[in-house]
Amino acid sequence: MESTQGQRCMLRIAATYRIETPLDPAEAAEAMAGEQSTGTFLKLVGETDALRERHAARVESVVNLNERRVTPSLPGALPGATYACADVTLSWPFENIGTSLPNLLATVLGNLTELRELSGICLTNIELPDAFIEALPGPQFSIDGTRRLSGVESGPLIGTIIKPSVGLSPDETADLVKQLVEAGIDFIKDDELIADPPYSPLAQRVPAVMRVINDHAQRTGRKPMYAFNITGDIDEMRVRHDLVRDHGGTCVMASVNWIGMGSLTALRRHAVLPIHGHRNGWGLFYRYPKLGMSYRAYQTLLRLAGADHLHVNGLASKFAEADASVISSAHACLTPLLERPERDDRAMPVFSSAQTVHQAHATFDQLKSTDLIYTCGGGLMAHPNGIAAGCRSIRAAWEATTSGVTLEDYAKQEPDLAIALRAFRRPFS
Amino acid sequence: MESTQGQRCMLRIAATYRIETPLDPAEAAEAMAGEQSTGTFLKLVGETDALRERHAARVESVVNLNERRVTPSLPGALPGATYACADVTLSWPFENIGTSLPNLLATVLGNLTELRELSGICLTNIELPDAFIEALPGPQFSIDGTRRLSGVESGPLIGTIIKPSVGLSPDETADLVKQLVEAGIDFIKDDELIADPPYSPLAQRVPAVMRVINDHAQRTGRKPMYAFNITGDIDEMRVRHDLVRDHGGTCVMASVNWIGMGSLTALRRHAVLPIHGHRNGWGLFYRYPKLGMSYRAYQTLLRLAGADHLHVNGLASKFAEADASVISSAHACLTPLLERPERDDRAMPVFSSAQTVHQAHATFDQLKSTDLIYTCGGGLMAHPNGIAAGCRSIRAAWEATTSGVTLEDYAKQEPDLAIALRAFRRPFS
Repeated sequence: MESTQGQRCMLRIAATYRIETPLDPAEAAEAMAGEQSTGTFLKLVGETDALRERHAARVESVVNLNERRVTPSLPGALPGATYACADVTLSWPFENIGTSLPNLLATVLGNLTELRELSGICLTNIELPDAFIEALPGPQFSIDGTRRLSGVESGPLIGTIIKPSVGLSPDETADLVKQLVEAGIDFIKDDELIADPPYSPLAQRVPAVMRVINDHAQRTGRKPMYAFNITGDIDEMRVRHDLVRDHGGTCVMASVNWIGMGSLTALRRHAVLPIHGHRNGWGLFYRYPKLGMSYRAYQTLLRLAGADHLHVNGLASKFAEADASVISSAHACLTPLLERPERDDRAMPVFSSAQTVHQAHATFDQLKSTDLIYTCGGGLMAHPNGIAAGCRSIRAAWEATTSGVTLEDYAKQEPDLAIALRAFRRPFS
Repeated sequence: MESTQGQRCMLRIAATYRIETPLDPAEAAEAMAGEQSTGTFLKLVGETDALRERHAARVESVVNLNERRVTPSLPGALPGATYACADVTLSWPFENIGTSLPNLLATVLGNLTELRELSGICLTNIELPDAFIEALPGPQFSIDGTRRLSGVESGPLIGTIIKPSVGLSPDETADLVKQLVEAGIDFIKDDELIADPPYSPLAQRVPAVMRVINDHAQRTGRKPMYAFNITGDIDEMRVRHDLVRDHGGTCVMASVNWIGMGSLTALRRHAVLPIHGHRNGWGLFYRYPKLGMSYRAYQTLLRLAGADHLHVNGLASKFAEADASVISSAHACLTPLLERPERDDRAMPVFSSAQTVHQAHATFDQLKSTDLIYTCGGGLMAHPNGIAAGCRSIRAAWEATTSGVTLEDYAKQEPDLAIALRAFRRPFS
């Protein structure tokens, strides 16, 4: 397979799966290829050799893994004495699909998750022809554009989420934003639980918040980025995007799983602002390793659709994801899809969930980059000396980190950091 | 809880989950409520009693189930001696969300699937205030509208999927459609694998197919329904919908999981044709019982967004779903969301996947309704005497079924049925 990779990438779409099956994995791979292209459960007259030659999915490789189970990982599979695991790569002619992400998903995932031939299936990677990648919009702002708009030339964007997540009025939100921008924050986002509810409609929240941010920018020359959650149907999102733009806002956010790939692409084609992609619901795809999709595959699609920022959880978070997986996800976001001089299709990874001063060092050590947004909700706002102190403590933690100084040493000159180090539980032993 | 149900349904949104947890289920339920409303991992100043009172999610009930596991069903959970199962109902104030389906999902599913407090979580039911239901468009055509447009007053719509799924040119598709309509078919659909690819663009496929169907309708007075797969981003879908409408087509189809709830709602608000909802990818939500969403909850959302037809697999299909689940799904589609004299918000269930003459009796016996679309791909097109005979055999099987006659008896006067009974494997023993 390796030798044909270059050619395949030019002309065919390839997807790799980790499967578990009661059958010989090669036989299961053939069933997958048939189901997702020219086959049905019976041989048909119309399925001519010429049609198969041109349109059938092809099994590119089957690599048997040294793992056999006696019980199936998913119910409903055909019965078997044991269940074998394998990595299977299928490919499709580019022309079967065109360059549509929703239709790509119907082909590379589609009914595969329901096949009785499989007792486990995870889509681990997607390889697309350059022409496919070039036909999709991709990130419009990526890392450089985000830095330019937020005035943060280097280092991570120090960020926070408005907390409490729900319940604050537009004016209460604006008051909180005032404290945050005065404390020197780079990035603020709405929680995914608040979009355009009756008690805080965007038509009021956007002007209230942007009045504060625009005033601050006028005085200081720097405009912190606020990601307004505009999640909704595409018509609502376009109107809300324009509202944010018209009030001088610099970012919009959407719950990418619920608006769908098609809406994300459509929003991107309309947008003149960066799109902050929130992946809530992502647990459905990864939490059970035997069913779903890898973040590597998933973030490829979201970036093609146009997300500029993508959530990756954080180290030692409150969530179930392992730290190694978080770092691997962030690396994926920072790896170009196409290496071209004039092109930047990376997404800025967003670290969040129970982040405090304590995770800065480990995050930098493992990611080896500061091209990230580091968002603390409680870890900033619950600082014993208040929000401004919380903001300074997080920034100090990152200054220490990028200068190669321990937090404890740096805390000797930064009292807010010293207090934060004691106030927040140390997540690593 | 029962006594407050009426009031809750008026003012609050409720969701029920089957959870597995290393904690006391009541404690896990509180963690879920906190995560999805006013709480974060630390108590904040801004989380006032008044704000909590007005906006916090509430634990309505926790019913412990008699099931304890020694190993967690999902990785990444907090460690426990055992893992308990429970049914948990949470509720939220209606005003937290407004009437947006994407934002409803961010609230009722959102980050819950990633919580370390849970080693299993399935959203089993959603109850919505009447005002929420009334604010969403719902099905525009439902069953009566589908019958009116296709000219099928009673009995199931006998349908087929164009096979091979991919590879036929517009003219080849039209030739096949000609055979099908002359054989008396009621309903034809594109496969989910073909939407608008370069080898069969809708701009050519729609006129080619509709020329055949319009000619047939002119001659016979009856216009079989063809569901064109218009899956794409919302702008593409609107243009394609209009193309179908302008050529006299009567149905459009979309892969609902990949276009997203927001796009489905937007398509519905634009559409003047029934929307055929294809759920490919649904396996991600149901295949592992310990993670995902029930079809009961899922189809509620899809109907609110505006799907007129919804796939439910079929009895003895090629897929992993159990027959009881298929019937339960179809019943859910046929159960009104709101009982009002002027309102019909049911969706027509679509039976498919390896359906032949053999499943007609069991389907009718268990569903006790003929308000369904019965689609056979291979089970019709692979009839030994050809497509027309295949179509007649499926219709005969349903005539027998609804008249209370066995297929074997009916086959004595219907040679196409007799041949089909022998040609296709009997799926029930």
